[in-house]
Amino acid sequence: MKRLWQNCHAATMKGGRYSIVEDAAIVTEGGRIAWIGPRGEMPPQGAHETTDLEGAWVTPGFIDCHTHLVFGGDRSGEFEQRLEGVSYAEIAAGGGGIASTVRATREASEDALFASAKARAQGLLREGVTTLEVKSGYGLDLENERKMLKVARRLSAQLPLTVRATCLAAHALPPEFANRADDYIDYVCAQMLPALGREGLVDAVDAFCEHLAFSPAQVERVFQAARELGLPVKLHAEQLSSLHGSSLAARYGALSADHLEYMTDDDAAAMAQSGTVAVLLPGAFYMLRETQLPPLDALRRHGVPVALASDLNPGTSPALSVRLMLNMGCTLFRMTPEEALAGVTIHAARALGLDETHGSLEAGKAADFVAWRIGRPAELAYWLGGALPNRVVRSGDEVRV
Amino acid sequence: MKRLWQNCHAATMKGGRYSIVEDAAIVTEGGRIAWIGPRGEMPPQGAHETTDLEGAWVTPGFIDCHTHLVFGGDRSGEFEQRLEGVSYAEIAAGGGGIASTVRATREASEDALFASAKARAQGLLREGVTTLEVKSGYGLDLENERKMLKVARRLSAQLPLTVRATCLAAHALPPEFANRADDYIDYVCAQMLPALGREGLVDAVDAFCEHLAFSPAQVERVFQAARELGLPVKLHAEQLSSLHGSSLAARYGALSADHLEYMTDDDAAAMAQSGTVAVLLPGAFYMLRETQLPPLDALRRHGVPVALASDLNPGTSPALSVRLMLNMGCTLFRMTPEEALAGVTIHAARALGLDETHGSLEAGKAADFVAWRIGRPAELAYWLGGALPNRVVRSGDEVRV
Ligand SMILES: [Zn+2]
Ligand SMILES: [Zn+2]
Repeated sequence: MKRLWQNCHAATMKGGRYSIVEDAAIVTEGGRIAWIGPRGEMPPQGAHETTDLEGAWVTPGFIDCHTHLVFGGDRSGEFEQRLEGVSYAEIAAGGGGIASTVRATREASEDALFASAKARAQGLLREGVTTLEVKSGYGLDLENERKMLKVARRLSAQLPLTVRATCLAAHALPPEFANRADDYIDYVCAQMLPALGREGLVDAVDAFCEHLAFSPAQVERVFQAARELGLPVKLHAEQLSSLHGSSLAARYGALSADHLEYMTDDDAAAMAQSGTVAVLLPGAFYMLRETQLPPLDALRRHGVPVALASDLNPGTSPALSVRLMLNMGCTLFRMTPEEALAGVTIHAARALGLDETHGSLEAGKAADFVAWRIGRPAELAYWLGGALPNRVVRSGDEVRV
Repeated sequence: MKRLWQNCHAATMKGGRYSIVEDAAIVTEGGRIAWIGPRGEMPPQGAHETTDLEGAWVTPGFIDCHTHLVFGGDRSGEFEQRLEGVSYAEIAAGGGGIASTVRATREASEDALFASAKARAQGLLREGVTTLEVKSGYGLDLENERKMLKVARRLSAQLPLTVRATCLAAHALPPEFANRADDYIDYVCAQMLPALGREGLVDAVDAFCEHLAFSPAQVERVFQAARELGLPVKLHAEQLSSLHGSSLAARYGALSADHLEYMTDDDAAAMAQSGTVAVLLPGAFYMLRETQLPPLDALRRHGVPVALASDLNPGTSPALSVRLMLNMGCTLFRMTPEEALAGVTIHAARALGLDETHGSLEAGKAADFVAWRIGRPAELAYWLGGALPNRVVRSGDEVRV
């Protein structure tokens, strides 16, 4: 049965702009948008049910295109210790930092990981997120990376969410490979990626290119392995220093390069040429009190599509809200509210390779949208924290979380 | 009938510390806490009902001690214009800034103001706020300041919230008094405050001491008028420059001085001596991208109690979450999670003159508390944005919002 959603305005985000349709009608059928446009221009639709959206503004469902949502434990104890004056060195000596998350993730059962991840995913869904990416990267061996990726698949199966699973085995060096980073990369390329890819658990391959993680040469080996497996790549790049990982990612036609605070103009040019999306992560910038801003003007000038994401992770961005990232993208990075909204819809879809089917309100695309009780789209970025009243629709069905 | 709340831990916040009771029991009766302590030490209670809190952490209900929650319109359009490159001068020339909020508030009916304020208050309540302060200050004439304060009283009557109403007539100069600030202060002191005080609409008197608002001499006249009416005072002080408004507030035994980025060591000493609470407002600091931090070390050294609040207002802090302020107090101001939690409970109660009855979990105090499904109190400050699962209890009754 067709459903007509009316008495609303739509910010369709077509072409990365608001692309507003006032007094819009949206017809959905079989989980897709069958027609969208000004209500007065709607062709006869035959039999259908009607939902009154009471003057709401409709946007595409939010897409959180960079998360580490699956993890064991949390790092609130460490957060508190740091603020009480315990030094980073002391915390590291006590087994803190990412090592503690790796330990907790390895120790957790798949069911326990699923339960905590599900609660976080439900929070995002309630806020309007209908698609999200989940990275592995706290298992760091075949068995535990598999466990994390299976949790991502279960989230997709059990919640009204589209979930993309990214293998981030090259996130950090596991303790059993201490001082043997090249050996670990061998293991990732020769064993983990082929096995996990064969099992259908991987939608994309990511790595962390940074002095404290993996070098560009090591990352390139991961990218080559991904290419052989026919998997698209992404990269954590230029967060703390300039290693030109984003240019490397562009050379491999990466879906996205993420963070990018220290990228150069040449990196931006390379990304523009390859169509690689720049994913900015203001939550980590804020939590780490960084001062080096990502070069938004260069990205604009070169025409690089810019996405925004939560980077939800227990260490540097325990962010439970995508809408807060809109505010931070504007307040901290000086994006416009329109750019920020494109950053969590159409550009985020592209960062996941889903822009043909998701990220904007257009006939033929998934009927994933949010009806917001607001007066104008800019309010989504303007209000700081809290919840805005909304109705979330995924695959044409209203979500009850 | 007594009620026993058990299977929980409590961060009672007694004395401004966590003051944790593990495996706590809380007995409530007639809207108050009748007994709280370790479950094993609870004396026989006679007939009572029992609620199982399923291992939750219980904190006092949050107290948001500085808000401008009642206002007409919003400033999302202006927020967007600024980010699109329109200059502040152009926006001001177009009637923007606080003038636009004054206009919209004056034009709004009391019912319309109530409806929008109620929605915001419900959002805070859902998050765990059981007491909040509401300032007037967008009416700037007798009739419209009265209208705002009446909305504050209606919120208190119609929602399960304790609401304190603060008259902030000396917030900005209304257009009809342009270039006649002293005349406006005359009007505030001789007519507005006495009338509104007589009508029982005012719990405290506030003013904005700043170059772009009112001088210390003008503020002092407001404080004298308040003293004659027997009303306690508060002050917006040292947000953008150092005028020693906080020392002035201390001289008048103010409940609080708020913002305080530019306060001096001497100001802190004066506040300590008068027992005036320092209310820090990280939402405005963040939205304005300020870099001058409030002198937390001086406040600690002098023993000034420090509160945190949302400053919810349409211009400089459209903040819909107190929990986000905990994170910002820690991340931006380097408070500890314990200090931040004291800042939205016991110290916030003191900033409202309510610390005898609110702000900590102690026998005899209001049975206002929140049961959080978290593993430790620091999580309240650690998670960035979003909602944490909770149950909110106000006057001994569980709130359903
Ligand atoms: Zn990441
Ligand atoms: Zn204020």
